[in-house]
Amino acid sequence: MDIGIGLFGLGTVGSGVVKILQDNADQIAKRTGTHLLVKHAVVNNLEKKRTGFINNFPITNDAKDILNNPEIQIVVEVMGTLDQAYKIIKDSLTAKKHVVTANKDLIASRGQELVAIAEANGVDLFFEAAVAGGIPILRTLANSFTADEISRVAGIINGTSNFILTQMTTNKLSYANALQLAQKKGFAEADPTNDVAGFDAAYKLIILSNFAFGVQPALDDLTINGITHLTDADIEDANAFGYAVKLLGVAQRVGQDANAISIDVSPYLVPFTHPLATVHNENNAVLVNGESVGEIMLYGPGAGELPTANSVLSDLTNIATDIALNTPGRPFNSFNQNLDIAKPSQRLSRRFIVIEVDDTPGAMYSVTGMFAAAKISFSDLKQTPAANGTARLVALTHPASDAQLNVIQTTIRNADGINLAAEYKIFS
Amino acid sequence: MDIGIGLFGLGTVGSGVVKILQDNADQIAKRTGTHLLVKHAVVNNLEKKRTGFINNFPITNDAKDILNNPEIQIVVEVMGTLDQAYKIIKDSLTAKKHVVTANKDLIASRGQELVAIAEANGVDLFFEAAVAGGIPILRTLANSFTADEISRVAGIINGTSNFILTQMTTNKLSYANALQLAQKKGFAEADPTNDVAGFDAAYKLIILSNFAFGVQPALDDLTINGITHLTDADIEDANAFGYAVKLLGVAQRVGQDANAISIDVSPYLVPFTHPLATVHNENNAVLVNGESVGEIMLYGPGAGELPTANSVLSDLTNIATDIALNTPGRPFNSFNQNLDIAKPSQRLSRRFIVIEVDDTPGAMYSVTGMFAAAKISFSDLKQTPAANGTARLVALTHPASDAQLNVIQTTIRNADGINLAAEYKIFS
Repeated sequence: MDIGIGLFGLGTVGSGVVKILQDNADQIAKRTGTHLLVKHAVVNNLEKKRTGFINNFPITNDAKDILNNPEIQIVVEVMGTLDQAYKIIKDSLTAKKHVVTANKDLIASRGQELVAIAEANGVDLFFEAAVAGGIPILRTLANSFTADEISRVAGIINGTSNFILTQMTTNKLSYANALQLAQKKGFAEADPTNDVAGFDAAYKLIILSNFAFGVQPALDDLTINGITHLTDADIEDANAFGYAVKLLGVAQRVGQDANAISIDVSPYLVPFTHPLATVHNENNAVLVNGESVGEIMLYGPGAGELPTANSVLSDLTNIATDIALNTPGRPFNSFNQNLDIAKPSQRLSRRFIVIEVDDTPGAMYSVTGMFAAAKISFSDLKQTPAANGTARLVALTHPASDAQLNVIQTTIRNADGINLAAEYKIFS
Repeated sequence: MDIGIGLFGLGTVGSGVVKILQDNADQIAKRTGTHLLVKHAVVNNLEKKRTGFINNFPITNDAKDILNNPEIQIVVEVMGTLDQAYKIIKDSLTAKKHVVTANKDLIASRGQELVAIAEANGVDLFFEAAVAGGIPILRTLANSFTADEISRVAGIINGTSNFILTQMTTNKLSYANALQLAQKKGFAEADPTNDVAGFDAAYKLIILSNFAFGVQPALDDLTINGITHLTDADIEDANAFGYAVKLLGVAQRVGQDANAISIDVSPYLVPFTHPLATVHNENNAVLVNGESVGEIMLYGPGAGELPTANSVLSDLTNIATDIALNTPGRPFNSFNQNLDIAKPSQRLSRRFIVIEVDDTPGAMYSVTGMFAAAKISFSDLKQTPAANGTARLVALTHPASDAQLNVIQTTIRNADGINLAAEYKIFS
């Protein structure tokens, strides 16, 4: 059986998809019983030179060439911007074409709407490549943990920031120099905000939360902190206490009966002995904790032409099977439930806190009094002299809530001679 | 829709399956649209007390109670021995019941035959729990890497031996003491041969090779070395050179055009910086290298009641979907191809070699001459005094084939005053 594919976009991922389809055509045919053939590509820029694959299909810049082509049953959208992709996908689904996309921003923000359109038209909408590049985490959550109750999903899901943090840790680079190196290597864009401020990870974490918990959080439901304020000293202190610093997306059930969900993207201290601490440079990993399965981790490349294209291919071969069996139209994720968004008092975690305080008699007494008043207790403390007659106090605390932390932040803000230099959660 | 389940076996995994089905009944119903209900269990020993689940189904010791029960559509075989399990599964498939099993020995040795019977009867035969306990590696290989060309699968797939090696490394236990601790903790059986001699890992590696390469190797096609000969000194030396020692199952394409496959279970030196080196104690991990996807690793519990039961549950929910969609009878693994079994000359690897040699003038000259004659060159060397006037020579080599190693082994065996104390491959 021949299945026609139309591509919107022939950039990095799009070219990779064509290349794999051509290189492994025999194997795909043998394993799926279908021939996946690229019939047409629509691109923004017709002038751009395309290499790396056999150019045996028309390339135009008119969406209708794909939408109105009856030979095309599957549309691959890897073109990019939010509004353009939304229209392409909606029009394709409405034209009863199956869709594969890698657009995480779109799926995170308007996925529910598009899933409903796909279902109404009896076609598939898959997006494995939207989260963690080559790591097949969405299909695994959908197919292998259906019967388990997942308590937490935690991931290193932004390669750019993980590369920067790895370089700061292992090669003692400053944040600025590590960012520069990431840009030089093509791991960071000229404007790196989306990656280093945590937004890219936040979109991916929303999609992971859809699959792991059946919830549909909005971006506003998340706490998002990036890595831009991290200093070399913070990382050195964390390392000295036995922790790596990682930007994690963490979604977990909290509160009584675990009926609430806490979703945040933040730098976390991860014990060196934990598998997440061993994920270096541009790699990604997603940790899943389930009542039955315990702790599982999937590790791999979080980006890159061929790894990401391979995730698109896994969507394509699954659609091919659905077409062959005449079973399309089931949602990628079948899990739906309501959980409250956690209150600050329900968000408990051990903390890594750095305070700069005037090195005067009674200063430390005053600081410890503030924490005692907020009922936050320390497990580890280290004081060193800092610049200009101040002292640097690094404290690891026992579990404390965001509400308690808010109290401390306010108290410190209103006090003289004391500054909350850094505050990160400790992953356990 | 109600789907009836019959269990052969109510031991660790069987009880776990019942417990998860009962505890998460609502969630499973919501997500699959079906009710999975245990209708009957057949056990060997009726006297045994069963706890941990609600006993709301009959338990007998007559297989016919399940085989002839028209309410039972799925059989879960977690009863054990090879011949008994073979008969149960064959009879169940022939009675047009879907089957889930965790029996790796059986699937590795007679899987092809059973898969054909399942196909002929239009029913499913799934066995995710047979490999790496809670890690969903088989379904991932089947569903997410269909379009990729896999070059290597390497795994820590025996929890017992990994526990022993971890204890030898981190707590400096001797092999005997580490084994004793594993037995005390329930990670090793009274007769540990199956685990420590590599057979358990070999069965799992055969199944991984079915899925990753589409080949059907026999046990004879594998090279199998266990961990029983490993000494504390070998591990210390490996550590000093920057390597952990792990029992790995490695299946990889080798030779010209990668048309051969090398499949072996052996202790390997794994660089401390490699993700496989961070897999400790009873945990498992499977590393997959694909042309497109690059390097992916799945990590998690390799055994245990609930993790293994969760893999059975993933099979059950997938069968439930097949029943609901009326699409059963497709093989779990659709990949078939012919690859030659690699010749010794095609099996290349860097080596870690330990030689004991009489500490006399010219001894080292003679040793290095043997390696030069076999065209094996060293990358690192360390000589230390050993007992009774001998010297211990630890060498890391550049890539050398099994054929070259055979030459060295024969040469040393025929020489006086020199002994090949250890020889392991280096993973890279």
